[in-house]
Amino acid sequence: MTETPPTAAVLLIGDELLSGRTRDINLQQIATYLGPLGIPVVESRTVSDVQASIVKAVNDLRAEYTYVFTTGGIGPTHDDITADAIAAAFGVGIGEHPEVIAMLAERYAEMKTEFTPARRRMARVPHGASLVANPVSGAPGFQMENVFTLAGVPQVARAMLEDIGPRLRTGAVVHKVTIRGVGLREGDIAEPLGALAVEMPNVSFGSYPWFRSVGDNGVHLVASTIHPDLIDTIVERLEAIISATGVTPERLTEEAG
Amino acid sequence: MTETPPTAAVLLIGDELLSGRTRDINLQQIATYLGPLGIPVVESRTVSDVQASIVKAVNDLRAEYTYVFTTGGIGPTHDDITADAIAAAFGVGIGEHPEVIAMLAERYAEMKTEFTPARRRMARVPHGASLVANPVSGAPGFQMENVFTLAGVPQVARAMLEDIGPRLRTGAVVHKVTIRGVGLREGDIAEPLGALAVEMPNVSFGSYPWFRSVGDNGVHLVASTIHPDLIDTIVERLEAIISATGVTPERLTEEAG
Repeated sequence: MTETPPTAAVLLIGDELLSGRTRDINLQQIATYLGPLGIPVVESRTVSDVQASIVKAVNDLRAEYTYVFTTGGIGPTHDDITADAIAAAFGVGIGEHPEVIAMLAERYAEMKTEFTPARRRMARVPHGASLVANPVSGAPGFQMENVFTLAGVPQVARAMLEDIGPRLRTGAVVHKVTIRGVGLREGDIAEPLGALAVEMPNVSFGSYPWFRSVGDNGVHLVASTIHPDLIDTIVERLEAIISATGVTPERLTEEAG
Repeated sequence: MTETPPTAAVLLIGDELLSGRTRDINLQQIATYLGPLGIPVVESRTVSDVQASIVKAVNDLRAEYTYVFTTGGIGPTHDDITADAIAAAFGVGIGEHPEVIAMLAERYAEMKTEFTPARRRMARVPHGASLVANPVSGAPGFQMENVFTLAGVPQVARAMLEDIGPRLRTGAVVHKVTIRGVGLREGDIAEPLGALAVEMPNVSFGSYPWFRSVGDNGVHLVASTIHPDLIDTIVERLEAIISATGVTPERLTEEAG
Protein backbone atom coordinates (compact mmCIF):
# COMPACT_ATOMS: atom_id res chain seq x y z
CA MET A 1 0.00 0.00 0.00
CA THR A 2 1.45 3.34 -0.99
CA GLU A 3 0.98 6.22 1.40
CA THR A 4 -0.43 9.37 -0.15
CA PRO A 5 2.01 12.30 -0.32
CA PRO A 6 1.94 14.46 2.81
CA THR A 7 0.17 17.83 2.78
CA ALA A 8 -0.01 20.72 5.21
CA ALA A 9 -2.36 23.53 6.16
CA VAL A 10 -1.48 26.67 8.12
CA LEU A 11 -3.90 28.34 10.53
CA LEU A 12 -2.92 31.88 11.50
CA ILE A 13 -4.70 33.06 14.65
CA GLY A 14 -5.02 36.69 15.71
CA ASP A 15 -7.22 39.77 15.42
CA GLU A 16 -4.14 41.81 14.51
CA LEU A 17 -3.74 39.90 11.22
CA LEU A 18 -7.34 40.58 10.17
CA SER A 19 -7.40 44.23 11.25
CA GLY A 20 -4.38 44.99 9.09
CA ARG A 21 -2.28 45.94 12.12
CA THR A 22 0.19 43.14 11.38
CA ARG A 23 1.30 41.69 8.07
CA ASP A 24 1.79 37.96 8.45
CA ILE A 25 5.12 36.35 7.67
CA ASN A 26 4.55 32.96 9.33
CA LEU A 27 2.80 31.39 6.33
CA GLN A 28 5.81 32.20 4.20
CA GLN A 29 8.35 30.88 6.68
CA ILE A 30 6.41 27.70 7.39
CA ALA A 31 6.01 27.05 3.64
CA THR A 32 9.70 27.71 3.07
CA TYR A 33 10.61 25.28 5.86
CA LEU A 34 8.27 22.51 4.69
CA GLY A 35 9.01 22.81 0.97
CA PRO A 36 12.41 21.11 1.07
CA LEU A 37 10.83 18.32 3.17
CA GLY A 38 8.42 17.61 0.33
CA ILE A 39 5.40 18.74 2.34
CA PRO A 40 3.45 21.33 0.33
CA VAL A 41 1.21 23.83 2.11
CA VAL A 42 -2.12 23.41 0.34
CA GLU A 43 -4.34 25.82 2.26
CA SER A 44 -4.05 28.57 4.83
CA ARG A 45 -6.67 30.30 6.93
CA THR A 46 -6.59 33.30 9.19
CA VAL A 47 -9.13 33.61 12.01
CA SER A 48 -9.63 35.99 14.91
CA ASP A 49 -9.20 35.32 18.62
CA VAL A 50 -12.63 33.71 18.96
CA GLN A 51 -12.80 30.14 20.23
CA ALA A 52 -15.58 28.94 17.94
CA SER A 53 -13.72 30.22 14.87
CA ILE A 54 -10.48 28.52 15.87
CA VAL A 55 -12.22 25.24 16.72
CA LYS A 56 -14.05 25.11 13.40
CA ALA A 57 -10.93 25.87 11.37
CA VAL A 58 -8.79 23.34 13.28
CA ASN A 59 -11.36 20.61 12.81
CA ASP A 60 -11.88 21.39 9.11
CA LEU A 61 -8.15 21.41 8.41
CA ARG A 62 -6.98 18.47 10.52
CA ALA A 63 -9.52 16.22 8.83
CA GLU A 64 -8.37 17.25 5.38
CA TYR A 65 -4.58 17.54 5.51
CA THR A 66 -1.72 15.44 6.85
CA TYR A 67 -0.47 18.24 9.12
CA VAL A 68 -1.83 21.50 10.49
CA PHE A 69 0.39 24.27 11.85
CA THR A 70 -1.22 27.00 13.94
CA THR A 71 0.50 30.24 14.93
CA GLY A 72 -0.46 32.77 17.58
CA GLY A 73 -2.45 32.99 20.77
CA ILE A 74 -0.24 31.05 23.20
CA GLY A 75 1.02 33.95 25.32
CA PRO A 76 -0.02 34.96 28.85
CA THR A 77 -2.81 37.47 28.13
CA HIS A 78 -6.60 37.11 28.13
CA ASP A 79 -6.74 37.05 24.30
CA ASP A 80 -4.37 34.06 24.15
CA ILE A 81 -6.95 31.29 23.82
CA THR A 82 -5.38 28.91 21.32
CA ALA A 83 -4.54 26.14 23.80
CA ASP A 84 -8.13 26.09 25.08
CA ALA A 85 -9.44 26.11 21.51
CA ILE A 86 -7.25 23.16 20.51
CA ALA A 87 -8.43 21.22 23.56
CA ALA A 88 -12.03 22.01 22.64
CA ALA A 89 -11.44 21.00 19.01
CA PHE A 90 -10.16 17.60 20.15
CA GLY A 91 -12.75 17.26 22.91
CA VAL A 92 -10.13 16.83 25.62
CA GLY A 93 -9.36 18.64 28.86
CA ILE A 94 -6.54 21.06 29.48
CA GLY A 95 -4.23 21.64 32.41
CA GLU A 96 -0.83 22.81 33.55
CA HIS A 97 1.94 20.58 32.23
CA PRO A 98 4.32 19.75 35.13
CA GLU A 99 7.40 19.80 32.93
CA VAL A 100 6.53 23.26 31.59
CA ILE A 101 5.73 24.59 35.06
CA ALA A 102 9.15 23.41 36.27
CA MET A 103 10.95 24.90 33.30
CA LEU A 104 9.20 28.27 33.49
CA ALA A 105 9.59 28.46 37.28
CA GLU A 106 13.33 27.99 36.86
CA ARG A 107 13.52 30.48 34.03
CA TYR A 108 11.64 33.22 35.88
CA ALA A 109 13.65 32.57 39.05
CA GLU A 110 16.86 33.10 37.05
CA MET A 111 15.39 36.33 35.62
CA LYS A 112 14.32 37.39 39.13
CA THR A 113 10.82 37.82 37.70
CA GLU A 114 7.63 36.81 39.48
CA PHE A 115 6.04 33.64 38.08
CA THR A 116 2.53 35.10 38.07
CA PRO A 117 -0.75 33.26 37.42
CA ALA A 118 -0.80 34.92 33.96
CA ARG A 119 2.62 33.45 33.16
CA ARG A 120 1.44 30.05 34.44
CA ARG A 121 -1.22 30.19 31.69
CA MET A 122 1.59 29.52 29.23
CA ALA A 123 2.05 26.08 30.84
CA ARG A 124 -1.50 25.02 30.03
CA VAL A 125 -1.48 22.25 27.41
CA PRO A 126 -4.33 20.05 26.11
CA HIS A 127 -4.37 16.58 27.69
CA GLY A 128 -2.44 14.15 25.54
CA ALA A 129 -0.34 16.76 23.76
CA SER A 130 3.42 16.53 23.46
CA LEU A 131 5.63 19.61 23.75
CA VAL A 132 7.41 21.61 21.06
CA ALA A 133 10.64 23.22 22.28
CA ASN A 134 10.98 27.00 22.29
CA PRO A 135 14.70 27.80 22.53
CA VAL A 136 14.01 31.54 22.09
CA SER A 137 11.68 32.50 24.92
CA GLY A 138 11.00 29.33 26.90
CA ALA A 139 7.24 28.81 26.79
CA PRO A 140 6.74 25.80 24.53
CA GLY A 141 4.35 25.01 21.72
CA PHE A 142 2.71 21.63 21.53
CA GLN A 143 1.62 18.84 19.22
CA MET A 144 -1.84 17.31 19.42
CA GLU A 145 -2.05 14.39 16.95
CA ASN A 146 -1.44 16.00 13.53
CA VAL A 147 -1.81 19.59 14.77
CA PHE A 148 1.24 21.64 15.78
CA THR A 149 0.65 24.82 17.79
CA LEU A 150 3.36 27.44 17.42
CA ALA A 151 3.89 30.93 18.79
CA GLY A 152 2.91 33.95 16.70
CA VAL A 153 6.19 35.84 17.15
CA PRO A 154 8.02 34.93 13.92
CA GLN A 155 11.43 34.27 15.48
CA VAL A 156 9.84 31.87 17.97
CA ALA A 157 7.66 30.14 15.37
CA ARG A 158 10.72 29.62 13.17
CA ALA A 159 12.71 28.08 16.02
CA MET A 160 9.84 25.74 16.92
CA LEU A 161 9.83 24.33 13.38
CA GLU A 162 13.31 22.91 13.97
CA ASP A 163 11.93 20.77 16.78
CA ILE A 164 8.98 19.64 14.68
CA GLY A 165 10.84 18.75 11.47
CA PRO A 166 12.10 15.32 12.62
CA ARG A 167 8.54 14.30 13.56
CA LEU A 168 7.20 14.78 10.04
CA ARG A 169 6.71 12.25 7.28
CA THR A 170 8.50 13.74 4.31
CA GLY A 171 7.48 13.62 0.67
CA ALA A 172 9.10 13.93 -2.71
CA VAL A 173 11.19 17.07 -2.88
CA VAL A 174 9.98 19.66 -5.33
CA HIS A 175 12.63 21.09 -7.64
CA LYS A 176 12.11 24.59 -8.90
CA VAL A 177 13.56 26.71 -11.60
CA THR A 178 12.93 30.42 -12.12
CA ILE A 179 13.66 32.25 -15.34
CA ARG A 180 12.85 35.89 -15.71
CA GLY A 181 12.45 38.25 -18.59
CA VAL A 182 13.00 41.92 -17.86
CA GLY A 183 10.49 44.01 -19.79
CA LEU A 184 8.49 40.90 -20.68
CA ARG A 185 4.69 41.04 -20.39
CA GLU A 186 2.57 38.01 -19.49
CA GLY A 187 0.48 38.41 -22.61
CA ASP A 188 3.62 37.94 -24.73
CA ILE A 189 4.27 34.42 -23.45
CA ALA A 190 0.87 33.21 -22.23
CA GLU A 191 0.08 31.05 -25.25
CA PRO A 192 3.34 29.08 -25.62
CA LEU A 193 3.53 28.77 -21.82
CA GLY A 194 0.01 27.35 -21.67
CA ALA A 195 0.89 24.91 -24.46
CA LEU A 196 4.01 23.82 -22.58
CA ALA A 197 1.95 23.25 -19.42
CA VAL A 198 -0.32 20.92 -21.37
CA GLU A 199 2.65 19.15 -22.93
CA MET A 200 4.41 18.59 -19.57
CA PRO A 201 1.69 17.58 -17.10
CA ASN A 202 4.29 16.49 -14.51
CA VAL A 203 5.45 20.09 -14.17
CA SER A 204 3.62 23.02 -12.60
CA PHE A 205 4.26 26.29 -14.43
CA GLY A 206 3.58 29.67 -12.86
CA SER A 207 3.87 33.14 -14.33
CA TYR A 208 4.41 36.10 -11.99
CA PRO A 209 4.57 39.63 -13.35
CA TRP A 210 6.25 42.41 -11.42
CA PHE A 211 6.07 46.13 -11.99
CA ARG A 212 8.04 48.62 -9.93
CA SER A 213 8.53 51.29 -12.58
CA VAL A 214 8.99 51.53 -16.33
CA GLY A 215 12.16 49.54 -17.09
CA ASP A 216 11.96 47.70 -13.77
CA ASN A 217 9.15 45.40 -14.78
CA GLY A 218 8.85 41.96 -16.28
CA VAL A 219 7.74 38.41 -15.64
CA HIS A 220 9.15 35.53 -13.60
CA LEU A 221 8.38 32.09 -14.98
CA VAL A 222 8.56 29.42 -12.29
CA ALA A 223 8.45 25.68 -12.94
CA SER A 224 8.12 23.11 -10.14
CA THR A 225 8.49 19.37 -10.46
CA ILE A 226 9.40 16.33 -8.41
CA HIS A 227 11.32 14.98 -11.44
CA PRO A 228 14.81 16.55 -11.37
CA ASP A 229 15.70 14.94 -14.71
CA LEU A 230 13.18 17.26 -16.39
CA ILE A 231 14.90 20.46 -15.27
CA ASP A 232 17.26 20.79 -18.25
CA THR A 233 14.41 20.44 -20.71
CA ILE A 234 12.27 22.88 -18.76
CA VAL A 235 15.02 25.51 -18.75
CA GLU A 236 15.61 25.09 -22.48
CA ARG A 237 11.91 25.39 -23.30
CA LEU A 238 11.25 28.40 -21.05
CA GLU A 239 14.32 30.20 -22.37
CA ALA A 240 13.13 29.57 -25.93
CA ILE A 241 9.67 30.99 -25.10
CA ILE A 242 11.19 34.16 -23.67
CA SER A 243 13.81 34.54 -26.41
CA ALA A 244 11.09 34.32 -29.08
CA THR A 245 9.71 37.65 -27.81
CA GLY A 246 13.08 39.36 -28.28
CA VAL A 247 13.79 39.46 -24.52
CA THR A 248 16.94 37.84 -23.07
CA PRO A 249 16.02 35.14 -20.52
CA GLU A 250 17.87 35.14 -17.19
CA ARG A 251 17.98 32.05 -15.03
CA LEU A 252 17.80 32.86 -11.34
CA THR A 253 19.43 30.91 -8.54
CA GLU A 254 17.58 27.72 -7.91
CA GLU A 255 16.40 26.47 -4.57
CA ALA A 256 14.95 23.10 -3.81
CA GLY A 257 11.55 23.32 -2.15
CA MET B 1 -35.74 45.45 11.61
CA THR B 2 -32.10 46.23 12.24
CA GLU B 3 -29.57 44.99 9.72
CA THR B 4 -26.71 43.02 11.18
CA PRO B 5 -23.31 44.76 10.99
CA PRO B 6 -21.46 44.03 7.75
CA THR B 7 -18.56 41.57 7.71
CA ALA B 8 -15.96 40.64 5.12
CA ALA B 9 -13.79 37.68 4.19
CA VAL B 10 -10.69 37.73 2.00
CA LEU B 11 -9.76 34.86 -0.32
CA LEU B 12 -6.17 34.97 -1.56
CA ILE B 13 -5.62 32.80 -4.64
CA GLY B 14 -2.24 31.63 -5.89
CA ASP B 15 0.32 28.83 -5.62
CA GLU B 16 3.04 31.43 -5.04
CA LEU B 17 1.49 32.42 -1.68
CA LEU B 18 1.44 28.82 -0.43
CA SER B 19 4.91 27.90 -1.71
CA GLY B 20 6.46 30.80 0.18
CA ARG B 21 7.63 32.46 -3.03
CA THR B 22 5.49 35.53 -2.32
CA ARG B 23 4.55 37.13 0.99
CA ASP B 24 0.99 38.40 0.78
CA ILE B 25 0.20 42.04 1.41
CA ASN B 26 -3.35 42.12 0.01
CA LEU B 27 -5.04 40.95 3.20
CA GLN B 28 -3.45 43.81 5.06
CA GLN B 29 -4.37 46.44 2.48
CA ILE B 30 -7.93 45.21 2.10
CA ALA B 31 -8.38 45.18 5.89
CA THR B 32 -6.90 48.65 6.16
CA TYR B 33 -9.27 49.92 3.47
CA LEU B 34 -12.39 48.31 4.94
CA GLY B 35 -11.67 49.17 8.59
CA PRO B 36 -12.59 52.85 8.34
CA LEU B 37 -15.80 51.83 6.54
CA GLY B 38 -16.82 49.79 9.57
CA ILE B 39 -16.50 46.49 7.71
CA PRO B 40 -14.26 44.13 9.71
CA VAL B 41 -12.45 41.31 7.95
CA VAL B 42 -13.44 38.26 9.98
CA GLU B 43 -11.70 35.46 8.08
CA SER B 44 -9.16 34.99 5.35
CA ARG B 45 -8.20 31.94 3.34
CA THR B 46 -5.41 31.22 0.91
CA VAL B 47 -5.86 28.53 -1.73
CA SER B 48 -3.86 27.34 -4.72
CA ASP B 49 -4.68 27.69 -8.42
CA VAL B 50 -7.02 24.69 -8.41
CA GLN B 51 -10.62 25.24 -9.45
CA ALA B 52 -12.23 22.92 -6.89
CA SER B 53 -10.34 24.63 -4.05
CA ILE B 54 -11.39 28.10 -5.18
CA VAL B 55 -15.02 27.08 -5.71
CA LYS B 56 -15.30 25.53 -2.25
CA ALA B 57 -13.74 28.51 -0.51
CA VAL B 58 -15.88 31.04 -2.43
CA ASN B 59 -19.07 29.16 -1.61
CA ASP B 60 -18.15 28.71 2.07
CA LEU B 61 -17.28 32.37 2.50
CA ARG B 62 -20.04 34.03 0.47
CA ALA B 63 -22.66 32.15 2.48
CA GLU B 64 -21.17 33.24 5.78
CA TYR B 65 -20.06 36.86 5.34
CA THR B 66 -21.57 40.02 3.92
CA TYR B 67 -18.76 40.50 1.41
CA VAL B 68 -15.97 38.38 -0.05
CA PHE B 69 -12.88 39.85 -1.72
CA THR B 70 -10.73 37.57 -3.84
CA THR B 71 -7.27 38.47 -5.13
CA GLY B 72 -5.20 36.83 -7.85
CA GLY B 73 -5.65 34.66 -10.90
CA ILE B 74 -7.22 37.10 -13.36
CA GLY B 75 -4.28 37.56 -15.74
CA PRO B 76 -3.76 36.13 -19.23
CA THR B 77 -1.88 32.89 -18.45
CA HIS B 78 -3.04 29.28 -18.15
CA ASP B 79 -2.86 29.37 -14.35
CA ASP B 80 -5.27 32.33 -14.19
CA ILE B 81 -8.49 30.47 -13.50
CA THR B 82 -10.28 32.67 -10.99
CA ALA B 83 -12.99 33.96 -13.36
CA ASP B 84 -13.90 30.39 -14.38
CA ALA B 85 -13.90 29.32 -10.74
CA ILE B 86 -16.24 32.16 -9.73
CA ALA B 87 -18.61 31.28 -12.57
CA ALA B 88 -18.55 27.65 -11.44
CA ALA B 89 -19.15 28.65 -7.81
CA PHE B 90 -22.26 30.58 -8.83
CA GLY B 91 -23.33 27.97 -11.39
CA VAL B 92 -23.38 30.48 -14.25
CA GLY B 93 -21.70 30.63 -17.63
CA ILE B 94 -18.77 32.82 -18.58
CA GLY B 95 -17.92 34.77 -21.70
CA GLU B 96 -16.12 37.76 -23.15
CA HIS B 97 -17.58 41.02 -21.90
CA PRO B 98 -18.06 43.35 -24.92
CA GLU B 99 -17.20 46.46 -22.94
CA VAL B 100 -13.93 44.93 -21.73
CA ILE B 101 -13.05 43.67 -25.21
CA ALA B 102 -13.56 47.18 -26.60
CA MET B 103 -11.49 48.77 -23.84
CA LEU B 104 -8.61 46.30 -24.10
CA ALA B 105 -8.61 46.45 -27.92
CA GLU B 106 -8.21 50.21 -27.75
CA ARG B 107 -5.56 49.98 -25.06
CA TYR B 108 -3.41 47.46 -26.94
CA ALA B 109 -3.82 49.39 -30.20
CA GLU B 110 -2.47 52.49 -28.46
CA MET B 111 0.45 50.44 -27.12
CA LYS B 112 0.98 48.96 -30.61
CA THR B 113 0.73 45.53 -28.96
CA GLU B 114 -1.05 42.55 -30.44
CA PHE B 115 -4.39 41.78 -28.75
CA THR B 116 -3.73 38.05 -28.57
CA PRO B 117 -6.18 35.28 -27.59
CA ALA B 118 -4.33 35.07 -24.24
CA ARG B 119 -4.97 38.76 -23.61
CA ARG B 120 -8.64 38.29 -24.59
CA ARG B 121 -8.89 35.83 -21.69
CA MET B 122 -8.75 38.85 -19.39
CA ALA B 123 -12.10 39.99 -20.83
CA ARG B 124 -13.89 36.81 -19.72
CA VAL B 125 -16.37 37.59 -16.96
CA PRO B 126 -19.04 35.38 -15.35
CA HIS B 127 -22.53 36.01 -16.70
CA GLY B 128 -24.34 38.56 -14.55
CA ALA B 129 -21.20 40.11 -13.07
CA SER B 130 -20.59 43.85 -13.04
CA LEU B 131 -17.14 45.30 -13.66
CA VAL B 132 -14.62 46.76 -11.23
CA ALA B 133 -12.44 49.47 -12.77
CA ASN B 134 -8.68 48.97 -13.03
CA PRO B 135 -7.10 52.39 -13.56
CA VAL B 136 -3.59 50.93 -13.30
CA SER B 137 -3.34 48.29 -15.99
CA GLY B 138 -6.72 48.20 -17.75
CA ALA B 139 -8.03 44.65 -17.31
CA PRO B 140 -10.93 44.98 -14.86
CA GLY B 141 -12.02 42.98 -11.85
CA PHE B 142 -15.65 42.13 -11.36
CA GLN B 143 -18.45 41.83 -8.83
CA MET B 144 -20.70 38.78 -8.68
CA GLU B 145 -23.40 39.37 -6.06
CA ASN B 146 -21.45 39.81 -2.78
CA VAL B 147 -18.13 38.57 -4.19
CA PHE B 148 -15.55 41.04 -5.53
CA THR B 149 -12.73 39.65 -7.67
CA LEU B 150 -9.55 41.73 -7.67
CA ALA B 151 -6.14 41.41 -9.26
CA GLY B 152 -3.27 39.90 -7.28
CA VAL B 153 -0.75 42.65 -8.07
CA PRO B 154 -1.01 44.80 -4.94
CA GLN B 155 -1.03 48.19 -6.69
CA VAL B 156 -3.88 47.03 -8.92
CA ALA B 157 -5.84 45.43 -6.08
CA ARG B 158 -5.53 48.66 -4.08
CA ALA B 159 -6.81 50.77 -6.97
CA MET B 160 -9.78 48.45 -7.51
CA LEU B 161 -10.90 48.93 -3.90
CA GLU B 162 -11.58 52.60 -4.67
CA ASP B 163 -14.16 51.58 -7.25
CA ILE B 164 -15.74 49.06 -4.88
CA GLY B 165 -15.98 51.26 -1.77
CA PRO B 166 -19.12 53.18 -2.80
CA ARG B 167 -20.96 49.89 -3.41
CA LEU B 168 -20.52 48.67 0.16
CA ARG B 169 -22.91 48.91 3.09
CA THR B 170 -20.84 50.49 5.82
CA GLY B 171 -20.92 49.73 9.55
CA ALA B 172 -20.01 51.44 12.78
CA VAL B 173 -16.50 52.80 12.60
CA VAL B 174 -14.07 51.18 14.99
CA HIS B 175 -11.93 53.58 17.00
CA LYS B 176 -8.54 52.37 18.09
CA VAL B 177 -5.97 53.46 20.57
CA THR B 178 -2.46 52.06 20.91
CA ILE B 179 -0.28 52.54 23.96
CA ARG B 180 3.11 50.97 24.18
CA GLY B 181 5.53 50.23 26.95
CA VAL B 182 9.17 49.92 25.98
CA GLY B 183 10.79 47.10 27.96
CA LEU B 184 7.39 45.90 29.17
CA ARG B 185 6.68 42.16 29.13
CA GLU B 186 3.23 40.72 28.58
CA GLY B 187 3.35 38.77 31.80
CA ASP B 188 3.74 42.06 33.71
CA ILE B 189 0.35 43.38 32.59
CA ALA B 190 -1.63 40.27 31.68
CA GLU B 191 -3.70 40.14 34.88
CA PRO B 192 -4.88 43.78 35.11
CA LEU B 193 -5.41 43.83 31.33
CA GLY B 194 -7.57 40.72 31.52
CA ALA B 195 -9.56 42.26 34.37
CA LEU B 196 -10.07 45.45 32.34
CA ALA B 197 -11.29 43.39 29.38
CA VAL B 198 -13.92 41.81 31.63
CA GLU B 199 -14.88 45.18 33.08
CA MET B 200 -15.29 46.84 29.63
CA PRO B 201 -17.03 44.25 27.43
CA ASN B 202 -17.71 46.89 24.73
CA VAL B 203 -14.00 47.20 24.10
CA SER B 204 -11.67 44.67 22.50
CA PHE B 205 -8.20 44.67 24.07
CA GLY B 206 -5.17 43.17 22.37
CA SER B 207 -1.63 42.77 23.62
CA TYR B 208 1.20 42.51 21.08
CA PRO B 209 4.77 41.95 22.22
CA TRP B 210 7.71 42.88 20.04
CA PHE B 211 11.33 41.89 20.39
CA ARG B 212 14.05 43.16 18.07
CA SER B 213 16.94 43.18 20.51
CA VAL B 214 17.54 43.79 24.21
CA GLY B 215 16.34 47.36 24.84
CA ASP B 216 14.27 47.38 21.64
CA ASN B 217 11.50 45.21 22.98
CA GLY B 218 8.18 45.76 24.70
CA VAL B 219 4.44 45.44 24.34
CA HIS B 220 1.80 47.33 22.38
CA LEU B 221 -1.62 47.42 23.99
CA VAL B 222 -4.37 48.05 21.46
CA ALA B 223 -7.99 48.81 22.33
CA SER B 224 -10.77 48.89 19.71
CA THR B 225 -14.31 50.10 20.22
CA ILE B 226 -17.22 51.54 18.30
CA HIS B 227 -17.89 53.89 21.25
CA PRO B 228 -15.61 56.92 20.84
CA ASP B 229 -16.73 58.34 24.19
CA LEU B 230 -14.90 55.47 25.91
CA ILE B 231 -11.49 56.38 24.49
CA ASP B 232 -10.44 58.77 27.27
CA THR B 233 -11.23 56.21 29.94
CA ILE B 234 -9.46 53.47 28.00
CA VAL B 235 -6.30 55.56 27.67
CA GLU B 236 -6.31 56.43 31.36
CA ARG B 237 -6.77 52.83 32.42
CA LEU B 238 -4.15 51.39 30.05
CA GLU B 239 -1.64 54.05 31.05
CA ALA B 240 -2.25 53.22 34.70
CA ILE B 241 -1.68 49.51 34.04
CA ILE B 242 1.64 50.20 32.33
CA SER B 243 2.77 52.82 34.86
CA ALA B 244 2.16 50.37 37.72
CA THR B 245 5.00 48.22 36.34
CA GLY B 246 7.44 51.15 36.48
CA VAL B 247 7.41 51.60 32.68
CA THR B 248 6.41 54.94 31.12
CA PRO B 249 3.43 54.49 28.79
CA GLU B 250 3.58 56.10 25.34
CA ARG B 251 0.44 56.79 23.38
CA LEU B 252 0.92 56.21 19.65
CA THR B 253 -0.84 58.08 16.87
CA GLU B 254 -4.41 56.95 16.56
CA GLU B 255 -6.10 55.86 13.39
CA ALA B 256 -9.76 55.15 12.92
CA GLY B 257 -10.39 51.72 11.47
